[in-house]
Amino acid sequence: MKKLYHGACFYPELWNEAVLEEDIKKMKEAGINVVRIGEFAWSKMEPEEGKYDIGFFVDVIRKLASHQIETVMCTPTATPPVWLTHGHPERMYVNERGETMGHGSRQHVCTNHPYFRERARLITEQIAQKTGRLPGLAGWQLDNEFKCHVSECMCQTCKTLWHKWLREKYQSIDRLNEAWGADVWSETYQRFEQIPQPGATPFLHNSSLRTMYQQFSMEKIAEFAREQAAVIRGYSDAPITHNSSVMFGVNNEELFSDLDFASFDTYASKENSAAFLFNCDLWRNIKKGRPFWIMETSPSYSASIESYAAPHEDGYLKAEAVSSYALGGAAFCYWLWRQQRAGSEQPHGSVLSAWGEPDVGYANVLEVERARKEVEPVMLSTVPVQAEAAVVYSDRAKAFLKTEPHRGLNYRSLITGFYERFVSLGIHRDVIFEGSALDGYKLLFTPFLHYMPQELIEKASAFAENGGIWVAGPLTGGRTKHHTIHTDCGLGPLETCAGVKTLYTFPMDERRAAGSAFGVKAPLSLWSAVFEARPSEALGIIEQGPASGKAFITEHKQGKGKIVMLGSMPAGEAGDVMLKRLISHYAEEAGITMKTDVTPGTIVAPRTGPDGIVWVMINMDGKGGEVTLHKDAVDLIANKREAAGRLTIGPYQYRIILFPDM
Amino acid sequence: MKKLYHGACFYPELWNEAVLEEDIKKMKEAGINVVRIGEFAWSKMEPEEGKYDIGFFVDVIRKLASHQIETVMCTPTATPPVWLTHGHPERMYVNERGETMGHGSRQHVCTNHPYFRERARLITEQIAQKTGRLPGLAGWQLDNEFKCHVSECMCQTCKTLWHKWLREKYQSIDRLNEAWGADVWSETYQRFEQIPQPGATPFLHNSSLRTMYQQFSMEKIAEFAREQAAVIRGYSDAPITHNSSVMFGVNNEELFSDLDFASFDTYASKENSAAFLFNCDLWRNIKKGRPFWIMETSPSYSASIESYAAPHEDGYLKAEAVSSYALGGAAFCYWLWRQQRAGSEQPHGSVLSAWGEPDVGYANVLEVERARKEVEPVMLSTVPVQAEAAVVYSDRAKAFLKTEPHRGLNYRSLITGFYERFVSLGIHRDVIFEGSALDGYKLLFTPFLHYMPQELIEKASAFAENGGIWVAGPLTGGRTKHHTIHTDCGLGPLETCAGVKTLYTFPMDERRAAGSAFGVKAPLSLWSAVFEARPSEALGIIEQGPASGKAFITEHKQGKGKIVMLGSMPAGEAGDVMLKRLISHYAEEAGITMKTDVTPGTIVAPRTGPDGIVWVMINMDGKGGEVTLHKDAVDLIANKREAAGRLTIGPYQYRIILFPDM
Amino acid sequence: MKKLYHGACFYPELWNEAVLEEDIKKMKEAGINVVRIGEFAWSKMEPEEGKYDIGFFVDVIRKLASHQIETVMCTPTATPPVWLTHGHPERMYVNERGETMGHGSRQHVCTNHPYFRERARLITEQIAQKTGRLPGLAGWQLDNEFKCHVSECMCQTCKTLWHKWLREKYQSIDRLNEAWGADVWSETYQRFEQIPQPGATPFLHNSSLRTMYQQFSMEKIAEFAREQAAVIRGYSDAPITHNSSVMFGVNNEELFSDLDFASFDTYASKENSAAFLFNCDLWRNIKKGRPFWIMETSPSYSASIESYAAPHEDGYLKAEAVSSYALGGAAFCYWLWRQQRAGSEQPHGSVLSAWGEPDVGYANVLEVERARKEVEPVMLSTVPVQAEAAVVYSDRAKAFLKTEPHRGLNYRSLITGFYERFVSLGIHRDVIFEGSALDGYKLLFTPFLHYMPQELIEKASAFAENGGIWVAGPLTGGRTKHHTIHTDCGLGPLETCAGVKTLYTFPMDERRAAGSAFGVKAPLSLWSAVFEARPSEALGIIEQGPASGKAFITEHKQGKGKIVMLGSMPAGEAGDVMLKRLISHYAEEAGITMKTDVTPGTIVAPRTGPDGIVWVMINMDGKGGEVTLHKDAVDLIANKREAAGRLTIGPYQYRIILFPDM
Repeated sequence: MKKLYHGACFYPELWNEAVLEEDIKKMKEAGINVVRIGEFAWSKMEPEEGKYDIGFFVDVIRKLASHQIETVMCTPTATPPVWLTHGHPERMYVNERGETMGHGSRQHVCTNHPYFRERARLITEQIAQKTGRLPGLAGWQLDNEFKCHVSECMCQTCKTLWHKWLREKYQSIDRLNEAWGADVWSETYQRFEQIPQPGATPFLHNSSLRTMYQQFSMEKIAEFAREQAAVIRGYSDAPITHNSSVMFGVNNEELFSDLDFASFDTYASKENSAAFLFNCDLWRNIKKGRPFWIMETSPSYSASIESYAAPHEDGYLKAEAVSSYALGGAAFCYWLWRQQRAGSEQPHGSVLSAWGEPDVGYANVLEVERARKEVEPVMLSTVPVQAEAAVVYSDRAKAFLKTEPHRGLNYRSLITGFYERFVSLGIHRDVIFEGSALDGYKLLFTPFLHYMPQELIEKASAFAENGGIWVAGPLTGGRTKHHTIHTDCGLGPLETCAGVKTLYTFPMDERRAAGSAFGVKAPLSLWSAVFEARPSEALGIIEQGPASGKAFITEHKQGKGKIVMLGSMPAGEAGDVMLKRLISHYAEEAGITMKTDVTPGTIVAPRTGPDGIVWVMINMDGKGGEVTLHKDAVDLIANKREAAGRLTIGPYQYRIILFPDM
Repeated sequence: MKKLYHGACFYPELWNEAVLEEDIKKMKEAGINVVRIGEFAWSKMEPEEGKYDIGFFVDVIRKLASHQIETVMCTPTATPPVWLTHGHPERMYVNERGETMGHGSRQHVCTNHPYFRERARLITEQIAQKTGRLPGLAGWQLDNEFKCHVSECMCQTCKTLWHKWLREKYQSIDRLNEAWGADVWSETYQRFEQIPQPGATPFLHNSSLRTMYQQFSMEKIAEFAREQAAVIRGYSDAPITHNSSVMFGVNNEELFSDLDFASFDTYASKENSAAFLFNCDLWRNIKKGRPFWIMETSPSYSASIESYAAPHEDGYLKAEAVSSYALGGAAFCYWLWRQQRAGSEQPHGSVLSAWGEPDVGYANVLEVERARKEVEPVMLSTVPVQAEAAVVYSDRAKAFLKTEPHRGLNYRSLITGFYERFVSLGIHRDVIFEGSALDGYKLLFTPFLHYMPQELIEKASAFAENGGIWVAGPLTGGRTKHHTIHTDCGLGPLETCAGVKTLYTFPMDERRAAGSAFGVKAPLSLWSAVFEARPSEALGIIEQGPASGKAFITEHKQGKGKIVMLGSMPAGEAGDVMLKRLISHYAEEAGITMKTDVTPGTIVAPRTGPDGIVWVMINMDGKGGEVTLHKDAVDLIANKREAAGRLTIGPYQYRIILFPDM
Repeated sequence: MKKLYHGACFYPELWNEAVLEEDIKKMKEAGINVVRIGEFAWSKMEPEEGKYDIGFFVDVIRKLASHQIETVMCTPTATPPVWLTHGHPERMYVNERGETMGHGSRQHVCTNHPYFRERARLITEQIAQKTGRLPGLAGWQLDNEFKCHVSECMCQTCKTLWHKWLREKYQSIDRLNEAWGADVWSETYQRFEQIPQPGATPFLHNSSLRTMYQQFSMEKIAEFAREQAAVIRGYSDAPITHNSSVMFGVNNEELFSDLDFASFDTYASKENSAAFLFNCDLWRNIKKGRPFWIMETSPSYSASIESYAAPHEDGYLKAEAVSSYALGGAAFCYWLWRQQRAGSEQPHGSVLSAWGEPDVGYANVLEVERARKEVEPVMLSTVPVQAEAAVVYSDRAKAFLKTEPHRGLNYRSLITGFYERFVSLGIHRDVIFEGSALDGYKLLFTPFLHYMPQELIEKASAFAENGGIWVAGPLTGGRTKHHTIHTDCGLGPLETCAGVKTLYTFPMDERRAAGSAFGVKAPLSLWSAVFEARPSEALGIIEQGPASGKAFITEHKQGKGKIVMLGSMPAGEAGDVMLKRLISHYAEEAGITMKTDVTPGTIVAPRTGPDGIVWVMINMDGKGGEVTLHKDAVDLIANKREAAGRLTIGPYQYRIILFPDM
């Protein structure tokens, strides 16, 4: 990493030459050193089918470079032009109610349609050819926010591809019928061609069909990304990313496996800063060792003509920026530089207004720039420390919970809520993917994985064998890969591996069910697995409601480590206490050292460098905070010694403390 | 009745031979003596069009019989196989938004399509032929829960049949136009072919069209049942039923007129035990003198991949089972025996889990079995006593309120709420249908019958003439058979018969309207009829809001009895008191004797036998209760004398008391 | 004006001859002197295509006239008969989800379809020919409540007309692309034929497209009205109106420009009497100097088979009637005379029930008639006084807010809430349209005009120049005519004219943003414009949240008057105080004299006549009220002197006070 980026999304094609000049001048004033361009500009680049004109963007990139502003070039495939869509309903996205999308808005085309794929390939090739070696080209962004407005397409093209995908996956229709339990309601198929897409039915569709259709859709969008990346690589060495999110209908682990660096968009409010931190702790790990980018965030508030978010309080933007840099980010970029003058996002907050003047968040943008300069030396000379505790995130689990939401469960909320406990306990943590290596971790959590892949079970089991502590659950392991129930035991291979006996599973009603563990009694909730309460292993005992006397938490020695089963979700305030005690208990037992007593609302991001360990502390809630320095340190910003003891951080302030190596 | 059944729904076709053996063994352990099979197994029985294989089920029935487990055989027509649906959208169900259902789920086919009817006839004939005379065949169930997921089909086949049905009903288009008041918005039809199904329109459809389309749909599904029953009767003498409900889009009175015994499904929670009791008091009377079956209930909780109910508290299942036996049930059957391993109901509670072990409700199932054995001798030697008070239930009224819900009214909630007052007053009651005989009753209630058939008016009037007390209303009599307003007087023939004068009708706003009757003043609500307040007959006077000074309750001498008009619905707590006082008042006046002072949450089910009157008392709310024995009695379970006086029943306990004939 | 009308909507075609005779007799008893007929009677008038029979209505009009009951004749085009619709889906209305309406209900046909237009022309011509010169014909009503159930049609006919309309409006596709900023998401069009209607898309449609489609639809319905009016004028001199509303998808200013007098329908409850008054103050001004009609209001409650409103309290109907007469109404007409016996509005309140007897509101109808007679002499000899304060209402602004509702904003609620402050301050006010002349006003408010037309800016600016005070905002001026953002400054031409500097705009979050003005600090809300706080002009300063220290209210001297910018919406109770202080402050400064200290819930309607100024005072909330007479006056009803001082008005009472000219 050579610099910290401070960037903005930029649409020069929507404005005239004079505005471009003015924008560049003002970018310099605001400290913008990178912009993203081109993402919705297909009709500018190819106004008629086959008539290409990339020259405008070539000029822009050159001009920016001449002012030391780097460029991330985008492929414009999220907004196919009217010549591609008009008169061709068969190319359009079809939603789950069977409605065919019309032209206008974004993502209106089926990304699996062969004609779209061909035109996408051609326009990307044109762009890559013309811009791929330009000076100042910092990287590439494919498309924009895959599957943010849409989910699984139900068009005829997808139907055919779906049948092909199923044939490849299951080989024979009998195996599919068996895997899906299709005989349950006489849904049994005779031929792959008969298998529907999960459209309208009087009652619920088969769970396997629904989950597999999501997986099919996720694989296809990753395939599209792979195709596009290959085209670009023929003409450019700049690294490729996609501005993704955990909110979209993609499998990020799969999607990023063929991309070069991680980036994401976030518009979380201060109240939801845990979601912001979650993202940083996640995306840092998808391309380990390579900094992530925040490709889009609002300088003050997001909005469309339909709704808006509240503007950030002054100071919060800076806290966000420094947090992201400290947690492994290389770039902090705004959406957008200059307010759209038209279209459905015209009220969205921006750096400059549509009339070219500082927008409401402008002073905060300047603050970010001052902070960026201040922290850059430390960030460039240090790297984030790998955490000792890891929580597994899975977009596949998200798909399983979309199919089977129990009572309106939302995977993203569940996992963020679980994660948030680590932050409030001051434990440094990584959020990792199912396929991530577990080297270096001491404590592993795998919550909300209805389906737990065999490879992950084996890896986690080996992790425990070698001394790690693995906490599995809640809502984990009870489904097969095909989204059915195990028939050998309640939690399938996980159960065998964890050395417990699942008696039964059932939905705990937190108004009636309660259990005790770690010295606290709390309501229990969610779909729960109940375990045999062997005296030596039962740590949490159900005390109220059905299954009283049985266990909901068990601990099993595994080699040098442990496997802990969490069968139910502690709820309410007491549940929060129980969950935190569980985490603290095992953090202590695992010997976790990257842990501070920082007050809630403030974070500590540990980094390491040639001079020692560095703590970047940021107050995120505007109330200020405190942390104990366990030994004497140096304040790298104030450039003065800080004695061991209590250290204060002001509202939205950041401080950087070095613990020099002895 | 030779035994009490304790049963479960069973899907042996989904499992292998070894599981079948194990299941039978475990059924014996749990006391299961009847199972229901075959209901969704069409693709197993006819994997390809015309290729039948019923052998599997023949073997299962024989094997079960050899273990003294009887079988209810089902027709599998709720889940047509893919060879019937694939490539044939014209055979599929079309909902009110015009969406054509796809394959998957249940009830996806139009049950009026001639090809479906033909294939249904053929498969049912095959099944009846092969299994109709097998030992252990206890009965038949047609299809599964007609119209539970769907309501009125809007397909082209239905459109044609609708026109035919209208032509038969109305003979000429002029009569239809006149009956419907089709000239109101120039909707006037020139030919039957022009009459739409009640699909999309900018504002509301004509009330007559909507109600008649529901009646058409209800008649057609009854016709299908009749056709199916006829096929079975060609090959089997076992009695035929259908697992119905008051929640579905059927007219149960019509549907069961050609079936042999009553059965229903219920998943009411403890909080809603009034709905459970309502069902028992209703279904006992649809096939008078013949015990009903509870064909489906959950051993602990119902669930699908989308949602779930809370599990029953321990003890409640037993209370349900004994209540149902005491109130006239012959069978108490679970859905389901072994948890589905796949599909959209995989999380549903069951007796055994998908991996073959006791599910969370298993201990309660054993409790039911112990209770069944304990109460069986009494149940077999006694029968339920006919009540003295009757409340009329009507699925046609449900259709009228679906067309005209006023402010979101739901017939089922209204009627259950009304019924619940009898339970809490300790009055034994029957819920009867419009066509039921009134012999033996002293007190009759006909609430929420927007349309009151002439035959019912005459029957109820004769009932009053002969000394009965008939309470009509609220929301009763104000609509004609065609769902229009009377033009001779407010309540049409009911009004004439009841000797009142309806001044006008209007919606009472319970925040402003109030009236007094039976010594209490209460808010008034719902669409109300206001009566002339003749001094001798006005029992309830409006005291607040429009129509103050007029009557909302009148009493009219009719022969040896009375007709009481209840023009409005007393609301709130005071309204509850008023309604209960009204019921108590007329119960006393009618000389009702089957009434106890049982505490709320506990019920008394009176039965009669050779030795005298028997009270089966069951606590349903888990809090225990009390009742006064008016004379010395015998506790048939403890086998000891109980002196007259206060008797206690423990939480979820049941007691059986005999008052020996002198 | 020769009389005050007391009327009812009447459907003699639905009843027989005897009922007609009885109805006329009862109308005379109730004081009904005008009826509206024919509006849904197309199938009666033209039972088969081209077979006309208007004779029935000719007879009815003659018969009514012979009883001194005048008639408003309607065209029946809201309910096209089945011969026009059956088998012709291409003629039907298509909603935004793409659903084609079926026959039944109302407004099911596309009013732009050429065949409909032709048949509408022919039937209207027939009616006009036969009835246009009949004695007693008081006027015409076109159709019924244009666009009340539907909004913008999405059929193929409309698509073609849309393209034509765009071509005429924008001349070239490049100008359209530029005006709409269509390049934002590569939506750029190559030809007009490619431009979609705003149907299904994955995310939001372009704002310009959506607003323009609404304008297209509004122009088309006005065009239809114009065509129809022209047909009638060929055969009749009676004045033409339409029963419109501010709730419907029409531009009333445009629609009424070619009609002869104003009329509207209202079913506001007492709780919402501000909406009733708003209507009177608006419709009085659309055809200045010509009294408006209330064409429909309920004698007690509105209802359909789906829902109902609470019945009016006794007395309120009379208060409504006298208010409307006093505020410039010539007619107060009920929907409906005799309750519908069939169809979806059968439960709707009426003067007589379907069985011909007084309905619940009847006594109030008699009260209205007594009042009408009592106030008629004064109303005929005086006219409403033009107000000094005016608030601009715009259906175009409604369209802009439908496209861009920010957070679910509803224009009608916003403008009614704003207006209500004038009522509660006792300030006499006019609600005027964008095109209305400003002569005679001293104080002008233009809130919630996202787009402010250049002509209005110029007119209002000249108004200020000549001494008026113009308060612009909130939510005003920030959008161009094409629904895009200005690129020269925040509020475009308004800003230049108002002499302020808009720094930026952003959504104020009332939980965090607050400002002070007129001695009160209040939360600020809605999309807000923030102004540079020049000391001399900044009257309201933001004190909390982003933009603290900047101005949200500024005052700018303009010639002899002032332009006041209100950049944000004061919220909550404190906001209500602030807004009222602002209004009072400028009312005083503008020298407004038509202002009383009437207590809230009571209104004063000032009129003028040969003898002096007349105050009609009406209590609308049933609680009675008071007002100070500033000098001695005469009570024209009691016919006695009232000394200057406090005057009391009883619940729902009205009083008429003359201040004689000296």
